[in-house]
Amino acid sequence: MKAILFIGDGMADRPVAALGNRTPLEAARKPNMDEIARRGISGEMYTIAPGVPPGSDTAHLALLGYDPYEVYTGRGPFEAAGAGIDMRPGDIALRANYATVDDALVVKDRRAGRIQGTKPLTDAVGQIKLSGAQFIFRSTASHRAALVLRGTGLSYEVTDSDPHEIGKKVLQVKPLLRPSEDMELARAILAGGVRKYLGRRRGANKTTKLLNEFSRKSYEILKNHPLNRERVMKGLLPANYLLLRGVGIAPHLKPLREKFGITGACVAAAALVRGVCRMAGMTVIDVPGATGSVDTDLNAKREAVLQALKTNDLVVLHVKGFDEMSHDGNAPAKVQFIERVDAMLSSLIDAADFIALAIDHTTPVSVREHTGDPVPVAIAGPGVRADEVSVYSERAAAEGGLGRILGKELLPILVDLMGRSKKFGA
Amino acid sequence: MKAILFIGDGMADRPVAALGNRTPLEAARKPNMDEIARRGISGEMYTIAPGVPPGSDTAHLALLGYDPYEVYTGRGPFEAAGAGIDMRPGDIALRANYATVDDALVVKDRRAGRIQGTKPLTDAVGQIKLSGAQFIFRSTASHRAALVLRGTGLSYEVTDSDPHEIGKKVLQVKPLLRPSEDMELARAILAGGVRKYLGRRRGANKTTKLLNEFSRKSYEILKNHPLNRERVMKGLLPANYLLLRGVGIAPHLKPLREKFGITGACVAAAALVRGVCRMAGMTVIDVPGATGSVDTDLNAKREAVLQALKTNDLVVLHVKGFDEMSHDGNAPAKVQFIERVDAMLSSLIDAADFIALAIDHTTPVSVREHTGDPVPVAIAGPGVRADEVSVYSERAAAEGGLGRILGKELLPILVDLMGRSKKFGA
Repeated sequence: MKAILFIGDGMADRPVAALGNRTPLEAARKPNMDEIARRGISGEMYTIAPGVPPGSDTAHLALLGYDPYEVYTGRGPFEAAGAGIDMRPGDIALRANYATVDDALVVKDRRAGRIQGTKPLTDAVGQIKLSGAQFIFRSTASHRAALVLRGTGLSYEVTDSDPHEIGKKVLQVKPLLRPSEDMELARAILAGGVRKYLGRRRGANKTTKLLNEFSRKSYEILKNHPLNRERVMKGLLPANYLLLRGVGIAPHLKPLREKFGITGACVAAAALVRGVCRMAGMTVIDVPGATGSVDTDLNAKREAVLQALKTNDLVVLHVKGFDEMSHDGNAPAKVQFIERVDAMLSSLIDAADFIALAIDHTTPVSVREHTGDPVPVAIAGPGVRADEVSVYSERAAAEGGLGRILGKELLPILVDLMGRSKKFGA
Repeated sequence: MKAILFIGDGMADRPVAALGNRTPLEAARKPNMDEIARRGISGEMYTIAPGVPPGSDTAHLALLGYDPYEVYTGRGPFEAAGAGIDMRPGDIALRANYATVDDALVVKDRRAGRIQGTKPLTDAVGQIKLSGAQFIFRSTASHRAALVLRGTGLSYEVTDSDPHEIGKKVLQVKPLLRPSEDMELARAILAGGVRKYLGRRRGANKTTKLLNEFSRKSYEILKNHPLNRERVMKGLLPANYLLLRGVGIAPHLKPLREKFGITGACVAAAALVRGVCRMAGMTVIDVPGATGSVDTDLNAKREAVLQALKTNDLVVLHVKGFDEMSHDGNAPAKVQFIERVDAMLSSLIDAADFIALAIDHTTPVSVREHTGDPVPVAIAGPGVRADEVSVYSERAAAEGGLGRILGKELLPILVDLMGRSKKFGA
């Protein structure tokens, strides 16, 4: 049996005064989502844990059945995977921003004037070779890029070079491990042994040295690059420095195939979501016109889902625009987008045996950031113990038969309904 | 944004025949608590875990967001902190009872006739000095006192000297570690290494020796103390022995400031609750007239809350009398006290952005002890997804939008609503 898992990024909300104390989901006319709730079983879900605002990466790890507290060390690896780098467990990855610095290495613009078309710069930086690790460097969108270090004895326990502020000098990368200052670490040393600690410390020192050397060399390359000279002549900010941050180590995610015995595909524009799905061993589908914004081509995404269902057990359809409207604080636009997406869902309701509605996190238009409130989920399909809930919304779902679940529990429940779960015990 | 967290100690109950099979909360007229439920979101909470009766210390640890199974080793450290001793992580603390023993060290009265005014005795015992650790000894109320050992290489894995029964001889303190009899320990040894075990064993031996020496010396001092000679002449029981129990090690509780980024104050009379709050880094406010009983000055406590709100993000208001009425098995008095406290709440409902109602544990008047039933919670304030529940009671709360939560989840949820939570991931 097959299933579609729809993920409405930031679609859940809190009651909005301007909507008559309803949430956008409660205010929107969305017959298809409600039909799924009516046919199926609803519940409320803490993607990570009660009161904990999920990030996009941790939320999607949980929605694919992984425990984010076990596998997550930082955003870098997921950004890199989203950029199409084929990450291997143990790879160290960082996010890199093309930025503008002056001769004293003071940051003038953290995004180099939101530069577009960095490929020539990225190709030049990509030539950097240092002994001790392989460097993989790739642009994503606008000023963003991803840097991966592959080799032995590396560590993610190092600091950012990004000062995260304009007017500050770029930072030297440093090892994070300073036992005298860190109670938690002292305890880890006592628990795990000094030898293990020394190994971690060595890895952090090696990685620090490599990253600082990379920063120096890339600055040499970038400040003299013809494209930057041209930008300066045109009065544009040169992209002459790479600010590094979000370092993490690529976890070994047991692929969905192994973990649940299912094949999976993912229709998503957001790089981070694509990255998580790729690392989970899913096929990540490119859809022309999918933008990760409210102007995305919903019909093209729907067609991609229908196509992917032919060869996959599970197809994840991720739609991002809700979150954008919440970050803008625009409740009416969020309601409108919910209604547009709902219309698109009409031809997906019966396209697979199961259809599940989920949300990665609440993003209230009143807060404009992710919050830790639970989100509604609904699953419809054969054998589901349908409940009395007939509306897909935050408050209606709290009455549902699923009760309260955690994000990492959703996919096991769906896989079990699909008849693909494995018995524990005999 | 600011919040008041009201904790009604033992306020939850089971249906009482004499109240028409209603619980005291269901039977009481309490318009203010009901108004909070009506405005807000309700749920039922297992403070520790389903079916586990919480102690006062573990319950309040959970209500402040700590996992009691991680941080709790015994009641001693919280009693000591409640007695105003500034506990440091690693301190070993015990509860001490002034008791009466005969010349053969057989316990005649575990409370020395509920002696009052032990200060002269405590001052004398406080002079005891033993090499190997610093001793801090302080009286609390009536026959109660707290003993703290501060030093290196100490352990909480030792037995009580209190035989917990009249007519029995006082016990020698012994190391708890007897590998041949203890499967759990055997496993710990295998996991942690023999060396670690030997360290624990050494600590237990050292602590045992110190406590037995303290017991011997304090007995010498007490049996010859003028105050006791005077008591005997008056026909009163002498307080000539200190029964030790409830040994525990002071955990490192990450202060609320660090854990949640909020400042907190606590208005409570009960020593144990004050101790937990103090160890969580909260300001513990002294309120003249607050007794921890039904005769407490509720108006004075209310004023203290209003005052504390000026300089704190979170103010905990703990009221104890409900529990006392339950231990007495007095349902009508419990109903009456609920009504009195409810009246006091009228001026607190709108005093902060948020008001939350919680209970540390159920204490049924029929059982007269803490039980493991869940307790009702309600949170009102801006952005809350208000539900249909309009009564604050055990059974009404089970229908609420919060569903079922654990005690340690309540504060993260409240802090998230206050806009102070931190995102996990990016």
